[in-house]
Amino acid sequence: MGKTLTAKILAAHLVSGSLVPGTEIGIGIDQTLTQDSTGTMAYLQFEAMDVPRVRTRLSVAYVDHNTLQCGFENADDHRYIETVAAKHGVVFSRPGNGICHQVHLERFGRPGWTLLGSDSHTPTGGGLGMLAIGAGGLDVAVAMAGGAYYLTMPKVCRVELVGKLPPWVAAKDVILELLRRLTVKGGVGRIFEYGGPGAATLSVPERATITNMGAELGATTSIFPSDEATRAFLAAQQRGCEWVPLAADPDAVYDETVTIDLGRLEPLVAAPHSPDNVVPVNEAAGTRLDQVAIGSCTNSSFSDLYKVAKILEGKRVDPGVSLVIAPGSRQVLGMLADCGALGVLIRAGARILECACGPCIGMGQAPRSGGVSLRTFNRNFPGRSGTPDAGVYLASPEVAAASALTGMITDPRHLGAPPAVVGDDAAGRNAGDNLFVFPPANGNGLAVVRGPNIKPFPRAAKPPAELAAAVVLKAGDNVTTDDIMPSHAGLLPYRSNIPHLADFCFSGLDASFPARAKAAGGGIIVAGLNYGQGSSREHAALVPLYLGIKAVIAKSFARIHRANLINFGILPLLFADPADYDALAAGETLTFAGLTDQIAAGAALAARTADGRTVSLKLEVTPREREVILAGGLLNLAGKGGGVHA
Amino acid sequence: MGKTLTAKILAAHLVSGSLVPGTEIGIGIDQTLTQDSTGTMAYLQFEAMDVPRVRTRLSVAYVDHNTLQCGFENADDHRYIETVAAKHGVVFSRPGNGICHQVHLERFGRPGWTLLGSDSHTPTGGGLGMLAIGAGGLDVAVAMAGGAYYLTMPKVCRVELVGKLPPWVAAKDVILELLRRLTVKGGVGRIFEYGGPGAATLSVPERATITNMGAELGATTSIFPSDEATRAFLAAQQRGCEWVPLAADPDAVYDETVTIDLGRLEPLVAAPHSPDNVVPVNEAAGTRLDQVAIGSCTNSSFSDLYKVAKILEGKRVDPGVSLVIAPGSRQVLGMLADCGALGVLIRAGARILECACGPCIGMGQAPRSGGVSLRTFNRNFPGRSGTPDAGVYLASPEVAAASALTGMITDPRHLGAPPAVVGDDAAGRNAGDNLFVFPPANGNGLAVVRGPNIKPFPRAAKPPAELAAAVVLKAGDNVTTDDIMPSHAGLLPYRSNIPHLADFCFSGLDASFPARAKAAGGGIIVAGLNYGQGSSREHAALVPLYLGIKAVIAKSFARIHRANLINFGILPLLFADPADYDALAAGETLTFAGLTDQIAAGAALAARTADGRTVSLKLEVTPREREVILAGGLLNLAGKGGGVHA
Repeated sequence: MGKTLTAKILAAHLVSGSLVPGTEIGIGIDQTLTQDSTGTMAYLQFEAMDVPRVRTRLSVAYVDHNTLQCGFENADDHRYIETVAAKHGVVFSRPGNGICHQVHLERFGRPGWTLLGSDSHTPTGGGLGMLAIGAGGLDVAVAMAGGAYYLTMPKVCRVELVGKLPPWVAAKDVILELLRRLTVKGGVGRIFEYGGPGAATLSVPERATITNMGAELGATTSIFPSDEATRAFLAAQQRGCEWVPLAADPDAVYDETVTIDLGRLEPLVAAPHSPDNVVPVNEAAGTRLDQVAIGSCTNSSFSDLYKVAKILEGKRVDPGVSLVIAPGSRQVLGMLADCGALGVLIRAGARILECACGPCIGMGQAPRSGGVSLRTFNRNFPGRSGTPDAGVYLASPEVAAASALTGMITDPRHLGAPPAVVGDDAAGRNAGDNLFVFPPANGNGLAVVRGPNIKPFPRAAKPPAELAAAVVLKAGDNVTTDDIMPSHAGLLPYRSNIPHLADFCFSGLDASFPARAKAAGGGIIVAGLNYGQGSSREHAALVPLYLGIKAVIAKSFARIHRANLINFGILPLLFADPADYDALAAGETLTFAGLTDQIAAGAALAARTADGRTVSLKLEVTPREREVILAGGLLNLAGKGGGVHA
Repeated sequence: MGKTLTAKILAAHLVSGSLVPGTEIGIGIDQTLTQDSTGTMAYLQFEAMDVPRVRTRLSVAYVDHNTLQCGFENADDHRYIETVAAKHGVVFSRPGNGICHQVHLERFGRPGWTLLGSDSHTPTGGGLGMLAIGAGGLDVAVAMAGGAYYLTMPKVCRVELVGKLPPWVAAKDVILELLRRLTVKGGVGRIFEYGGPGAATLSVPERATITNMGAELGATTSIFPSDEATRAFLAAQQRGCEWVPLAADPDAVYDETVTIDLGRLEPLVAAPHSPDNVVPVNEAAGTRLDQVAIGSCTNSSFSDLYKVAKILEGKRVDPGVSLVIAPGSRQVLGMLADCGALGVLIRAGARILECACGPCIGMGQAPRSGGVSLRTFNRNFPGRSGTPDAGVYLASPEVAAASALTGMITDPRHLGAPPAVVGDDAAGRNAGDNLFVFPPANGNGLAVVRGPNIKPFPRAAKPPAELAAAVVLKAGDNVTTDDIMPSHAGLLPYRSNIPHLADFCFSGLDASFPARAKAAGGGIIVAGLNYGQGSSREHAALVPLYLGIKAVIAKSFARIHRANLINFGILPLLFADPADYDALAAGETLTFAGLTDQIAAGAALAARTADGRTVSLKLEVTPREREVILAGGLLNLAGKGGGVHA
């Protein structure tokens, strides 16, 4: 029986378990990446493990989130990361070098290798045929220390691409189509493996758009084969020697298969406020726009922005629209400058922002109150733009450029012949990115600089023998990590300052939550399906830990957030009977008799309500995860001296 | 007797008074400009005058301060300004179009005309031979309504420039030399009129650097003749027909004269924390830098940034330094892109920021805690960078570029031959700035959009007949408007929200001030020399007004701030005997018997302390100003229907 590409890479990295869906496997990690908003915490945790030098093949610390630097906090965090990276053998990518995923794709991603990143869009690397997975910062810190990464073996879903994209239809429309069909929960517990004749027609940046936004499906990751297009991309990056051909066996057997005929796709948009709220562009056409934003780790490659320049060439942005463009990397920016496309964008009226995540994470360019923004980004959750009542649409660069010209959502097919496609093959001309700082061979003697914004992080304790705690929040389905721990320009500078963040926990859903949780001395959160979707930020676990949250009871969990909860000793409990979700009310107290005994005994847990009802719960964890929970979190197990679970 | 250039322009615009230094004159205003951080309030005040359309020859509303848009507040303010501008006949310069002074110089400034701007660096226009003065927003609103602008006729100081700048010495060094000689108080009550053979050797952007930073001398304004260099600059802007020759008569008589031999200057830096703390670059050489920032309204012209590109060409920024560059205008950015200089800057490692004030006003790029930044900007007051304990040096683009390469303050003369000088003559190629919105001929039917961040502003009341008030703050010399009303990324979005700002009044000097002033129901501020230097922001008067401040007693006042105090009905009192400054203690109560009678009676006022001492004070105001104070501020006089004092 032939093997999937996923199975081949996993088998080559397997440390424990076997490739049976639903069972836990441990894999060795070749590369890690962090970004600054999750990285400060990840390196604080790495330091707590007392490992002198990273044990990966390559670890890179990017700074791409907090580059506005409205106060000393950002620059202090950058300096901390720069110095801790130098000390422990991590490559540092300075602010201004670009977005981690785009830069990593260009300079470091390798077919067949594993990459663990403390950012949910780490699967971008799958565009290059690598197995790239997003995780919490503590998991990444453990991987840097040489530890394995543990995950539940996902189902492998084949996405068979046939045909060829019609004019004006883009890679973004492929992933929007998949989101339309499968929803933001459709990828949970799955790896999407793309293939078929249509896959071969897509360039690496196009593939990376698709694997990047596979995160919005809730997928573990997404991956394309490594083929001629991959070779061409690496050669242009002067890394041709790192290419290897990789593909599934022709007779590989998949758990599921989805087929997309590229030739039948049309331009799509995701309407507010979810990436799976997808409609054909014509259904939204005519919607007035205040802003068009192009960039983010999803669509900021040279070919993306070159296309935009060609569409705007000799034209002017509508006077009612603010068009902002953030190139994905310094390499992309340099190439745009060299070929004249940057001048074209400027003359058309585009505001050129720094190479960074920028508006995608609410770091600047918040729309006006009630404003409407069309973005080439990957998420349009409420408030993420920085403006609580703004409406954000997601679309391809082609739709964005066409809409910037008219001031309203516009089908680009009205523009006539599409611009000539330009590959990223010219990239090599600018491959010498110049804002990397490579670590010395031995960093032992180096000092780590800690500004006043670097606060100690909360450490979990072992679960109590007995637990009686109130339901301090009852939430619905699809609660995002943005809901749990909002992330915007005002809060991002405090990612290494948990006490400050705690006052804003769940503030979008229920501003009284932090005060209530503090008054109650903590408690339990109840939620519906897919709790914790979205960003990988472990602050969505660390901050509730700080507020005394002992357990989250949900109908289901998003993968990374579930792992983060376990890593920080918070129980991720499932309703045995989903009807109990309806029966439980906010404010009710749940009593777990003999809690640690129940955890140790097995999957079934029971709690009693004050009026005597029994709520049956499940703790579906692996033996390793059970050990982590009983230890009060992963760091208590990791201990000193590293080599954690390796 | 020959006339000065200043006298010629003033005479052509005189509405009241005569050109006798120390007496009040009123002048007609041809053009106004506002920027967004002072503009929202200026337009709210203009609206309160009920004048349908501006009565100037040209009024322009720029957005250059709050372009980060970390929340809806900025974009709401932009939308308010855009719609109020369209309604009332004001040209709107959208965010991303550039810094008001650079853009105005390029596109609208005219030799011999008067310009009143709600920004203290409005004198930049003097580089083009126009009389350009900074004022509070209310004065600008009155000018837009057709009213005259009143000022105390300054002394006219001739700055005789002889010789020619040596290699690596820049226009910035001319103004730093003047600051070194005269200090930040040296220009108070003066207009600096440049001339002599050295003046003819300077380009308009070089002249503009000098007139811009004349604001740091405390000068009313600075002006250069309109000559061949002016003609060339305007011709390159496709505005050759707007050129007129203008110069002082050869036998003009000046109140004072200063001579600078350009040939004897050397590269200078202003060390922390004042623009007049000037030393030769060699005295600061070797100081380690965390950041180098190039741009601001002082040094962001094409020729400035082209020079920087030539110095950095083929080299790399020191890895310990973050080099950030914010071009002054979209025109400059487009020219840099066209000629390849932008690509050079990017490859050298520069972070390219939007065309805006940016880091100069603390909107981003705050250094790390205790960091050291070298900037081509005009002010280095403590905390202005956004980092309270950062140290900021001011220098020319040449010094900045040389220092970015080494990571420490560096004398550029070590670099060998200087880059070839390139004029801004090529500017015409890109003169078609594309982010202006020109108002319709009739805006009567247009709606003004007010977001939730636009709050009503406090209105002054007539002074009380009797006053007993405590000294709620005793400050020293050279208190800046930054000290009075801090301006940084966290507060700038609230410039149209006085109640929010009030909690941060004097927060850098004394964080307990707002609470104390509120508890006392207001009071009196005591200060030393040059109170209110720096920015023109009238918030430094409006916020104390909101907090109940009735009078400021100082040894002397900065010009714009003194006018702002009067405009908002706060008494600007002088000590008759400076020794009384030492005798007065914070917390003491001063009683003014028959206050309004005293004000009406003349310049001499007296207050009594609780222990019976008499403090002799002076209210040195013109009859018009006395009328404004007794009316409780200018707006109470302006009334409905406009034509205020015209």
